[in-house]
Amino acid sequence: MTSPLDPATIDLFGVLAYGELTAFERLAEDARKAPTLSDKHALASMAAAEFEHYRRLHEHLLASGVDPEQAMRPFVAPLDGFHDSTPPNDWLESLIKAYVGDGLATDFYREVAAFVQDDASRALVLEVLADTGQASFAVEKVRAATAADPAVAGRLALWARRLVGEALIQAQRVAVERDALTELLVGGSGDLASMGRLLVRLTDGHTARMQALGLQH
Amino acid sequence: MTSPLDPATIDLFGVLAYGELTAFERLAEDARKAPTLSDKHALASMAAAEFEHYRRLHEHLLASGVDPEQAMRPFVAPLDGFHDSTPPNDWLESLIKAYVGDGLATDFYREVAAFVQDDASRALVLEVLADTGQASFAVEKVRAATAADPAVAGRLALWARRLVGEALIQAQRVAVERDALTELLVGGSGDLASMGRLLVRLTDGHTARMQALGLQH
Repeated sequence: MTSPLDPATIDLFGVLAYGELTAFERLAEDARKAPTLSDKHALASMAAAEFEHYRRLHEHLLASGVDPEQAMRPFVAPLDGFHDSTPPNDWLESLIKAYVGDGLATDFYREVAAFVQDDASRALVLEVLADTGQASFAVEKVRAATAADPAVAGRLALWARRLVGEALIQAQRVAVERDALTELLVGGSGDLASMGRLLVRLTDGHTARMQALGLQH
Repeated sequence: MTSPLDPATIDLFGVLAYGELTAFERLAEDARKAPTLSDKHALASMAAAEFEHYRRLHEHLLASGVDPEQAMRPFVAPLDGFHDSTPPNDWLESLIKAYVGDGLATDFYREVAAFVQDDASRALVLEVLADTGQASFAVEKVRAATAADPAVAGRLALWARRLVGEALIQAQRVAVERDALTELLVGGSGDLASMGRLLVRLTDGHTARMQALGLQH
């Protein structure tokens, strides 16, 4: 079976699939450490939703005649690297990581959907996008914690900045190594200037989320 | 809203729901440590299936006017106790725990289904039962490992025996503390002798699984 997918789309599905799989694992770990049953329920539900995204992306690759493991493999090191370099120190840091990660993923899905040439692949990206953004429950918890102890806000703001910094380091690594994927994103946005504007939009989304949390960005 | 569920059925759904939730968490942790992407895929898929069971049991309690957290709370200590006392030391021990735990859960669901008085509750137990038994992929991996190094078999057989021992300790704890649930199981099986036979059937199932793995029981 010849795959109808071009190398860039295979790369995109590979990074999205492994991203969802690692998000699932980390959220499940956070669920295990959650202080109450209702926090556990919220985190485990998010983890299960991420797994369902992974499952659908994985299935789409298989149905397109692509080996999902081969598609994911180039992204194992950068995504594991991101998670290994950002272990949350406590429950609030876990919530921030879930919220920031989920928000960036949602914005990224929205931006890349338009660049995907294959119709079925684009439809799937849009479907998964519609199902993200579950982390808003974190806002209330973080706001309550910083209201009770304003000193916490500074630490959490630094943590959020570090998360974005580490994500950019790994994204840079992927961009250098995966020409087709980079070409898809740059070509899709028109030129390097448009790519710059895409990054600005992603950063703006992050800033808005920090404001929702009541944190300096 | 008055719940149509009797206290024993509420207890049963509480222990099943929290059991599925903890199984989800431990399998997701095992997935994170899996040596290959295909092992990761298998473990994460099992974890997601356990979460789906949890979600349906949780939803059923809510729809019956029962607070799921209150129903689960009495079983948090025994189930956490089981998992805390049996942390797998390596990948093979994780696989055995998944296989033994999944098998015992399947047999337990099958046995208790008949005792549940409420029709909708019994139907749900049967539906969840039909979806268990996903751990058979473990058999091949364990057999391959013991064929390569026969000394491993002795250690894994001891490990499986310890898992069942710890499970019985926690089950005993639950039986002492939860009269209604114990009454449901003993009453459902007729008398204490029938209860003994139920335990024998559960043990027989375990023995069959150990043989499938090629381990002494």
